[in-house]
Amino acid sequence: MLELRLVQGSLLKKVLESIKDLVNDANFDCSATGFSLQAMDSSHVALVALLLRSEGFEHYRCDRNMSMGMNLNNMAKMLKCAGNDDIITPSRPMMAVTPSPSCSKVQVRFTCCFAQDKIADFEMKLMDIDSEHLGIPEAEYHAIVRMPSSEFSRICKDLSSIGDTVVISVTKEGVRFSTRGDIGTANVVCRQNTTVDKPEEATIIEMNEPVSLTFALRYMNSFTKATPLSNTVTISLSSELPVVVEYKIAEMGYVRFYLAPKIEDDDEETKP
Amino acid sequence: MLELRLVQGSLLKKVLESIKDLVNDANFDCSATGFSLQAMDSSHVALVALLLRSEGFEHYRCDRNMSMGMNLNNMAKMLKCAGNDDIITPSRPMMAVTPSPSCSKVQVRFTCCFAQDKIADFEMKLMDIDSEHLGIPEAEYHAIVRMPSSEFSRICKDLSSIGDTVVISVTKEGVRFSTRGDIGTANVVCRQNTTVDKPEEATIIEMNEPVSLTFALRYMNSFTKATPLSNTVTISLSSELPVVVEYKIAEMGYVRFYLAPKIEDDDEETKP
Amino acid sequence: MLELRLVQGSLLKKVLESIKDLVNDANFDCSATGFSLQAMDSSHVALVALLLRSEGFEHYRCDRNMSMGMNLNNMAKMLKCAGNDDIITPSRPMMAVTPSPSCSKVQVRFTCCFAQDKIADFEMKLMDIDSEHLGIPEAEYHAIVRMPSSEFSRICKDLSSIGDTVVISVTKEGVRFSTRGDIGTANVVCRQNTTVDKPEEATIIEMNEPVSLTFALRYMNSFTKATPLSNTVTISLSSELPVVVEYKIAEMGYVRFYLAPKIEDDDEETKP
Repeated sequence: MLELRLVQGSLLKKVLESIKDLVNDANFDCSATGFSLQAMDSSHVALVALLLRSEGFEHYRCDRNMSMGMNLNNMAKMLKCAGNDDIITPSRPMMAVTPSPSCSKVQVRFTCCFAQDKIADFEMKLMDIDSEHLGIPEAEYHAIVRMPSSEFSRICKDLSSIGDTVVISVTKEGVRFSTRGDIGTANVVCRQNTTVDKPEEATIIEMNEPVSLTFALRYMNSFTKATPLSNTVTISLSSELPVVVEYKIAEMGYVRFYLAPKIEDDDEETKP
Repeated sequence: MLELRLVQGSLLKKVLESIKDLVNDANFDCSATGFSLQAMDSSHVALVALLLRSEGFEHYRCDRNMSMGMNLNNMAKMLKCAGNDDIITPSRPMMAVTPSPSCSKVQVRFTCCFAQDKIADFEMKLMDIDSEHLGIPEAEYHAIVRMPSSEFSRICKDLSSIGDTVVISVTKEGVRFSTRGDIGTANVVCRQNTTVDKPEEATIIEMNEPVSLTFALRYMNSFTKATPLSNTVTISLSSELPVVVEYKIAEMGYVRFYLAPKIEDDDEETKP
Repeated sequence: MLELRLVQGSLLKKVLESIKDLVNDANFDCSATGFSLQAMDSSHVALVALLLRSEGFEHYRCDRNMSMGMNLNNMAKMLKCAGNDDIITPSRPMMAVTPSPSCSKVQVRFTCCFAQDKIADFEMKLMDIDSEHLGIPEAEYHAIVRMPSSEFSRICKDLSSIGDTVVISVTKEGVRFSTRGDIGTANVVCRQNTTVDKPEEATIIEMNEPVSLTFALRYMNSFTKATPLSNTVTISLSSELPVVVEYKIAEMGYVRFYLAPKIEDDDEETKP
């Protein structure tokens, strides 16, 4: 049996919004320590890893490890109803997985109490999804950039109106985002900046050695759907590893996106 | 001759917005006591009844009873121009029906004075529309639910992301809205609640006997277009009668929607 | 060499937004006195003339006259990235045209410093565009109407939901905008009004002789895209000349739109 209750009704909704464009169906793995998910996107290019630790929930109980296969779009529809903050009474949706008495299939149930007088509950069947869990080893990165998540989002959006790929280069000068398309080129340089009013506005660059890698902007723009989850984003780069774009979820865990760099090929960017 | 002037320029616009998706063409019936409309939706499933009593108008004069056939979309276009509140000077549109001297057809004329210096007028030809006026007898209902209109709107919208029909059940427990679809089931229960800060936030349930009826959510969602007209909605249910969804228009009248329940059929909801 | 810097990052963006629906590709003509453009719309019916005088720029340097052919949509994309006001640090984009060392083609470069720590630059290739510069002689107009630009925009939008053309008539009574369509007719009359709180809310009519001209509303609605550039619009009418719809750009210049009147033809407006 699994039971969990969130303080913020909208958090689980934001988590789903951040990943449901990349992943259609996925297994949520639940254990006594928390709630996690690992899934490849449908074209098997990007990997999403989510962790929500049990101590971040208002209530969390998981009697035995279980893996719950869900269609993320359907789950998002359910949560849109259950976990809404903008309703007069804020909701604290409760999620419970129990073998349903009426049906042989295991079901997940979201219950949502809006004050005393209104209760909503939603039941969704679970799916069997084949998936293999990849071990992601801790790694050393050539460079780690921490910057405001809204700024990273804006840069990715701006560059994608000009080109299809972004070259992210970290040097002593700072971090440079470049693109090239039919209409021209664009470069945005962000320098280290720690003298800011609020710590979340800082741009902090830790560099062991310079690195320059090319990525598909389409994926980067998908990752920035997680911007509402965190004020800052951390981008870890290494020439031999996929980039990690991480959004921390305060006191609970993270959403991490992994994406392999494109092999740089001069012909590729100069379109015919 | 008919002449009427509204204090709130946007009221007639909101009334039209609330019904023009259901009804394309309709006769407005005018008499000394007021302005009314009764029309079936184009698939002859739902009925709309509108009443605007003469005393609610800033100015109202109707010399003889008349029936004016109008295309509601065209009328909405005209009113969008004439009766706008968000313009600097609020308008009080005047509507007049007079035989036009230039043309044998009867025309309706909307005139709108924005302060001293700007006058807009719009003329629209009237149509001949065949319609029979149904007598709707006063009836006893098994249950009458009054609740905030925004909450009813939200519930209908939420449920329609999961299923196509809603079962509305009134018991001693409260009123329950349920749906079932391919992705799962949803139930929202609202209990009687009169201990609220503002009377319009109350949920009041008058029940003579329990009732449970099934309706198409598509129609319910159309009815909730009238939400801007009133803070509360009244839903009158009886197993032998169409449901009445009523939005009162302060000091003037109402918009009422009538919809026959679906015959409950267990096969129908379990889609193949 | 040309270098210019704007105080308001968004001004050049607004200028482009106001004309890019009418004109795809155009030559910007630069000289020591300023920056100008003259172009026909793609169907050769309307003419756009833009002037931004050098003294309106924070920094302006132009060593020799040059004509820069640009695709306005591409330029708008670049400026959307470079010149954004809604970012935390307001930007003052710098535009420079220099023979690029890496390429035989002349390029335009937009550079944008957001405070100390973020720099964006964008390079776009210039195009060769054939164009002939029309001399537009100063003319006497029968009537000149100055009114709030938002009101003119609203009238054009409202009328275009009813008809395709607008008749603009200036008489002693005021200025009248009329249209006629399948669903009916509309007339909006604005009288001279100088007793307003703010000078930009005045409607001022200078009339030498009455004039009544018909124009395509589609073009008028395109012209009103320039509304964000100015609180007022000036409409100069003469029966022998194209109408001039002018939006002044404070302390810098103007955007002017010229449109030939339609030859009035009674059959044309009464559609079959």
